[in-house]
Amino acid sequence: MARKTYGLIEAGGTKFVLGIAHGPDAVLETIRIPTTAPDETIGAVCEWFGARGPLDAIGLASFGPVELDRASPKWGHILNTPKPGWSGADLAGPLARAFCCPVSVDTDVNAAALAESRWGAGQGQRCVVYLTVGTGIGGGAVIEGQTLRGLSHPEMGHIRTPRHEADKAFAGICPFHGDCLEGMASGPAVIARYGHSLSQLPAGHPGQGIIAWYLAQAAVTVQAMLEPGRLIFGGGVMETPGLVERVREEAARLGGGYFRGQPADVIVRPGLGERSGLLGALALAGG
Amino acid sequence: MARKTYGLIEAGGTKFVLGIAHGPDAVLETIRIPTTAPDETIGAVCEWFGARGPLDAIGLASFGPVELDRASPKWGHILNTPKPGWSGADLAGPLARAFCCPVSVDTDVNAAALAESRWGAGQGQRCVVYLTVGTGIGGGAVIEGQTLRGLSHPEMGHIRTPRHEADKAFAGICPFHGDCLEGMASGPAVIARYGHSLSQLPAGHPGQGIIAWYLAQAAVTVQAMLEPGRLIFGGGVMETPGLVERVREEAARLGGGYFRGQPADVIVRPGLGERSGLLGALALAGG
Repeated sequence: MARKTYGLIEAGGTKFVLGIAHGPDAVLETIRIPTTAPDETIGAVCEWFGARGPLDAIGLASFGPVELDRASPKWGHILNTPKPGWSGADLAGPLARAFCCPVSVDTDVNAAALAESRWGAGQGQRCVVYLTVGTGIGGGAVIEGQTLRGLSHPEMGHIRTPRHEADKAFAGICPFHGDCLEGMASGPAVIARYGHSLSQLPAGHPGQGIIAWYLAQAAVTVQAMLEPGRLIFGGGVMETPGLVERVREEAARLGGGYFRGQPADVIVRPGLGERSGLLGALALAGG
Repeated sequence: MARKTYGLIEAGGTKFVLGIAHGPDAVLETIRIPTTAPDETIGAVCEWFGARGPLDAIGLASFGPVELDRASPKWGHILNTPKPGWSGADLAGPLARAFCCPVSVDTDVNAAALAESRWGAGQGQRCVVYLTVGTGIGGGAVIEGQTLRGLSHPEMGHIRTPRHEADKAFAGICPFHGDCLEGMASGPAVIARYGHSLSQLPAGHPGQGIIAWYLAQAAVTVQAMLEPGRLIFGGGVMETPGLVERVREEAARLGGGYFRGQPADVIVRPGLGERSGLLGALALAGG
């Protein structure tokens, strides 16, 4: 039996990553294209896949907010977003029409959680959470093989957080909530306070401990809500050397041994590295 | 066909509520017995059911922490608890042996969420969260008909919370975490600060606004994590007149319209009133 061919799309705010694969061990080709205007970007996506023969299924791991309700006429559309031009953009429709194959859509972070639960750091776990800390903070989860969704997908970056003792003056940068987690600990929130990214700060700069402290608060809240077997921290900010270790230590101290999952086991980096998004699209497509 | 007969147990830290039912509209008999020592209490439970003929199934909605993993030898046992004598107590085993019928176990709050999703305020919703605010704070959830569980059941009372501007001096009463949600907003945390329960405070006392503010922070965090269609607030503290309305208003202000679910629709009181626990046991039993 011929192996199926899947079209993979990791749709981000600054770039789209596309891929063709037969399976997780057989990603044939990938490309990055910049995210410009919706028509232009989606046109480029269709053109790239169109030149590569028929697809059996497409997996779309998208930035949010994106409509995931199949019963909605806006299914697969980007919802209200501050990103210019993208509010209401239909991502899934043009793909389904152009390639006459099933299209599966979920958030980039739900897809990453799914890929990690199948092939990465979350294998064998009933519940896996993937938290990305970068330009924004987003979270996805898989529970018994299903990605998490309520009325909409999770917006874990917007959970509430206590304030660090030495960080009372900063108002936070979230345009909706000011000092939610994303407002306090995303990449731009670091730069707004310290003028540099976390990895650019000199060793011993207090900002490193402060940001680790916020992420540990988030880790404890995630544990209290979901008790995941793995809480995977991805995203650009987490590339900072030593950061995940500090988050782990602080979460262990803060949790006080109360939760079943011990931070030493639970809090990890992605097993699939930067590939969790694109392989998430593969998992969505059924590959 | 004769209707099945279900044995219902709502196992709490101060009392057990027992019931016999054919279904949600046919609860035949109920009784409350005090929670004393495990042997004595479980003995009284077995005696009461034993005098009422055969049971087709038993649903046990228990206080936590309780082992929910069927594959564990401790399934249906109370885990480490500060409640004297109850650590390691086997609740489910004696019932299964005495009545030779299936026993289903979950937390009281997961069970309440299940009952509310089937017959109460959460009907028709993909995701329902039940948060009880009383002697402690606990939360359960149902997603697509399944109660929420990771490595263990949720411990939503122990999520992190910001501090209210006018409440910086109080250290919080959680023995594990100090100023987690339960440490700041449970019934005992109210009494520790103000010397009275919330409903005993005079109208206009600042404590009412402060506690509502904490519960609204929790509501927003729950929305960001799970986007439930209903977030149901039960428990003794929530009996305070006007409290749920204040939580709703504050959560709407705080959420800034960001989440799909609007607090006016999402944040509600239990549709089943005080019966959500016992009917939760019925739902667990399959009734």
